[in-house]
Amino acid sequence: MSFIDVLLGRPLASTEERAEKIGTLAGIPIFGLDALGSAAYGPEAALTVLIPLGILEVRYIVPLSATVIVLLTIVYFSYRQTIEAYPTGGGSYIVASQNLGILPGLLAGAALLVDYILVAAVGIAAGVGAVVSALPNLQRHTLALCLVILLMITIVNLRGVRETGVAFMIPTYVFVACLSVALIMGVWKTVVAGGHPIPVVPPPKLGSPQVAVTAWLLLRAFASGCTAMTGVEAVSNGVMAFREPKTKIARRTLTTIIAILIIFLAAIAYLCRSYQIGATPPGEPGYQSVLSQLISAVAGTGWFYYLSIGSILLVLALQANTAFADFPRVCRALAHDGFLPRAFANRGRRLVYSHGIYVLATLSALLLVAFSGITDRLIPLFAVGAFMAFTLSQAGMVAHWKRVGGPHARHSMMINGLGATATAITTMVMMVSKFTEGAWITLMVIPGFVILMRAVRQHYECVTRELATSSPLPIENLCPPLVVVPLEDWNKVTQKALRFALTLGPEIIAVQVSTEETSEDMRQRWRLLVQEPARRAGLPAPELVVISSPYRYVIAPIVNFILELEKKHPNRELSVVVPELVEKHWYEYFLHNQRGELLSALLLLKGNQRIVIVNVPWHVEA
Amino acid sequence: MSFIDVLLGRPLASTEERAEKIGTLAGIPIFGLDALGSAAYGPEAALTVLIPLGILEVRYIVPLSATVIVLLTIVYFSYRQTIEAYPTGGGSYIVASQNLGILPGLLAGAALLVDYILVAAVGIAAGVGAVVSALPNLQRHTLALCLVILLMITIVNLRGVRETGVAFMIPTYVFVACLSVALIMGVWKTVVAGGHPIPVVPPPKLGSPQVAVTAWLLLRAFASGCTAMTGVEAVSNGVMAFREPKTKIARRTLTTIIAILIIFLAAIAYLCRSYQIGATPPGEPGYQSVLSQLISAVAGTGWFYYLSIGSILLVLALQANTAFADFPRVCRALAHDGFLPRAFANRGRRLVYSHGIYVLATLSALLLVAFSGITDRLIPLFAVGAFMAFTLSQAGMVAHWKRVGGPHARHSMMINGLGATATAITTMVMMVSKFTEGAWITLMVIPGFVILMRAVRQHYECVTRELATSSPLPIENLCPPLVVVPLEDWNKVTQKALRFALTLGPEIIAVQVSTEETSEDMRQRWRLLVQEPARRAGLPAPELVVISSPYRYVIAPIVNFILELEKKHPNRELSVVVPELVEKHWYEYFLHNQRGELLSALLLLKGNQRIVIVNVPWHVEA
Repeated sequence: MSFIDVLLGRPLASTEERAEKIGTLAGIPIFGLDALGSAAYGPEAALTVLIPLGILEVRYIVPLSATVIVLLTIVYFSYRQTIEAYPTGGGSYIVASQNLGILPGLLAGAALLVDYILVAAVGIAAGVGAVVSALPNLQRHTLALCLVILLMITIVNLRGVRETGVAFMIPTYVFVACLSVALIMGVWKTVVAGGHPIPVVPPPKLGSPQVAVTAWLLLRAFASGCTAMTGVEAVSNGVMAFREPKTKIARRTLTTIIAILIIFLAAIAYLCRSYQIGATPPGEPGYQSVLSQLISAVAGTGWFYYLSIGSILLVLALQANTAFADFPRVCRALAHDGFLPRAFANRGRRLVYSHGIYVLATLSALLLVAFSGITDRLIPLFAVGAFMAFTLSQAGMVAHWKRVGGPHARHSMMINGLGATATAITTMVMMVSKFTEGAWITLMVIPGFVILMRAVRQHYECVTRELATSSPLPIENLCPPLVVVPLEDWNKVTQKALRFALTLGPEIIAVQVSTEETSEDMRQRWRLLVQEPARRAGLPAPELVVISSPYRYVIAPIVNFILELEKKHPNRELSVVVPELVEKHWYEYFLHNQRGELLSALLLLKGNQRIVIVNVPWHVEA
Repeated sequence: MSFIDVLLGRPLASTEERAEKIGTLAGIPIFGLDALGSAAYGPEAALTVLIPLGILEVRYIVPLSATVIVLLTIVYFSYRQTIEAYPTGGGSYIVASQNLGILPGLLAGAALLVDYILVAAVGIAAGVGAVVSALPNLQRHTLALCLVILLMITIVNLRGVRETGVAFMIPTYVFVACLSVALIMGVWKTVVAGGHPIPVVPPPKLGSPQVAVTAWLLLRAFASGCTAMTGVEAVSNGVMAFREPKTKIARRTLTTIIAILIIFLAAIAYLCRSYQIGATPPGEPGYQSVLSQLISAVAGTGWFYYLSIGSILLVLALQANTAFADFPRVCRALAHDGFLPRAFANRGRRLVYSHGIYVLATLSALLLVAFSGITDRLIPLFAVGAFMAFTLSQAGMVAHWKRVGGPHARHSMMINGLGATATAITTMVMMVSKFTEGAWITLMVIPGFVILMRAVRQHYECVTRELATSSPLPIENLCPPLVVVPLEDWNKVTQKALRFALTLGPEIIAVQVSTEETSEDMRQRWRLLVQEPARRAGLPAPELVVISSPYRYVIAPIVNFILELEKKHPNRELSVVVPELVEKHWYEYFLHNQRGELLSALLLLKGNQRIVIVNVPWHVEA
């Protein structure tokens, strides 16, 4: 068993694919992780923007969260309809390209790809953020922790995740349970204390306001808070994975996920106000995540606190993991349509789309390194792509209803139209308010992806057109090629190459390059060793051309000779027979010149349709 | 003109080589640099070992230097004889291998190679050491400065140095002049002041003794001080470069160089005692080289000081440069005899042995990085190789005289025997006294090199034996090969490959691997598109084999199929015709699978004498 087998598992045959269908209970962890995990950083992202407001910070989190909840409700109703219309899975790329055209589809696809990269990076960074809140000594290892977790997730995904496993269910439900207990306890304590509960562990004091409240600040806080909504589209992408009646079960799953998320967001906002919990400056010593403050204020820092923090880390790591399931899938869909290199559509040894996994892991590692693994710095780049995809998907649904018609078409169009409008406005708000802080990167990368994908498709189409034929094999005018044999010396390798050349055709030209290192000019021996025997056997005598090379180059003169020969015989095919020594051990590679390989590579590059390269290997026994 | 042309100069033809013959005046800079430059670090190396003696340090430098001078004189007389006996150049490798046998020759060669790597590293490090003594702010950039200078020297050498240029003469003579002026002035001031001159700039105070004087400490100081003798062999290596009467001029040059070096060593030792100048801890803040202290004590820190320091830097950089001339030359001699890969014997585009230059630059950069560019840390590794080569060369000369005989043979044997004995003892002292400090590295690397070189030669001999033949081309039993064509799809590339296959021979087997991505099983169309037309043209019909691949591997099944086919036909040659797409732009490389290339590479590796690979390229126009 090789090391790769141990690390990644044995190869799986195509027939070994399992297709278990899932219900609501299993559906919530699989498709809800991304959305539910957002509760861990969405409110905090909004609060972090409000830090300059100091003590006033907690006053504004409630109306901001209420706005996010309203938006979430609108989007929920929109996606209910997508589920109904696309029981085979309605990802934004599919919905937008089928209903709006290729360009909007590519835009949605690119936006999604960018956002999945950020889901992976933000999920890991936020999970590590929770851990370093609990264990401040680890703070200076933030980036290293992020990268280790990313590596682990990557390896797990290259092995292939059987998503229905309990590995997903337990942490998700522990997380939901812990957070529910903490929030219920907190709300109860607040009500009992008449709105001013005494925290078990007091959160860091909020400072006095540094700036006045402006609409701009609130817009920015809202834009950051919207990150809580990412992942809502997951259920609609995966309707086909549900048990029959799939539309119904998928809708029920979506309803449950959104309901839990809304309750979480509302309760977190309420408790932040009553317990006076604000954000702490991210990436600095003393940083503590909002949920960590909240849980310790409500329940102290006993076992329950550590259980909760542990479940947050796991859920956020698993959220990053959903990106590893979704990103390669979108890549596959795009590659299948010819917009990405075909390799993205091939499944690797473990039935996963390995290339997508490599690319996602590399890009999110780059993001983590560039932003030192600090969630808050990644937030401005995040969610823009998701909301762009939301908008295009909802707009696509409007077009869908218009096309499909039917009794409820008008009503359905209304709902999706409202969704599209709301998400479009939010996308604009995000772009503008977070532009200078990082959204510009996203806004440059997404169109870049689109341009690239169109170019890839165009190239494939050109090549396919160029190669396409359905005519039978043209067999007329078969004519043996003109054969060129570059040689250095008279030895068995040369003999073997020449013998093979003789089977190729009657016209053979041998070429020797003469430099100061050449041991002998072969012209004299040539007559004796080659031409005489050939004549005696009744074959035309092979010719020898000696090229002198004052600059001691060996390969270039041969290439030039062949290219000139090709010009002189515009209607002939040329076969270049390259003798090649193959060593037994890799380290012997350095002992012999690699002229054979270099010559082959150069001829492929500089040659043309009429030049064929024949490698005659000599396997060294020594 | 390409960037490479600008950086390295245009290619030079073999006929452009110039062979100017040189006299004594030009010979001193060219062959004396290595020896004379040693004066800048030899005495300092001895003093550094004595640092724990504090104030007593300067008392022992005089007898130590005297011992070194005696040894130098013995070696001088030895090498005078080598010059006479080898007017075509008597490097240690040549003298030892011609007179003592291959193994001693290789040992001398390996020892020289190791020492030249150290000459380059130590020369640069000591030059930078002089600079940071004058400009202490630069001290923390020591390593960076070393690497920049190494890079510059490497580029200059890849361009090819016309060694007779004034570039070598001016700094060498400025250095000799400055040091002479400073030493004469110092000696005069000392004599006038009755042995206790008042320094212009007082050197750092020497501490009180930390340890007692032991024989062991003095041995170690002597071993370090011997580094002053490296480079003495240079003239004897290059006798052929001198004007006629070359033996006489070469001897005169050697005499001058040794005389200057002896005067320098004696005067430096004398002035260190009278001015109370010791070594300062190397690599630490406040470090000042001994020559820097000496010159500023004698002449102050005016323009003369900076001129001297500048000339020391230049001379030491040029000393490193001599390693760049010598190392590739020894490599070439070894490669010529088959002990190193042949590439070392080929001259590059600028008529220099580029491979030797690359290897030397890489290895000395590694040394500089490993030892942070601090001279003192490199010293223990240094000179061991040189003295080993001295010993072997002198011993070889003894054997030479014994073999040659003649009237003065007895006398000559005596002189070289004395030289061999003295240097052998010194080598032993060095090995033992500096073993734990770094000499063990040298002592492991040298035999390692020897083993490697013998293995290389053995491999070459085996391959040559295996390939050698002087028989004429065997032309009987020419038989067309069995042709295998792997294909993926029916398109023009496939057609072209099949057409070429038809010219190769009548028996053609096409192979298709069927995985889940395969668009169609070609068996049905095969009859129509290939077999029918072939039959109609009166040719045997090519066969199609479809291999199903449950693990989605494509290349491995083809390779296995071919290897099995080869086993089934033990007397046939197999030609594998590999259709290959060649893109116009490098970035399009990623858009197509590289199965053709991978298949060719794997077949070369796993195949055997009877499998020939034919690449039929299709150059994409799009």
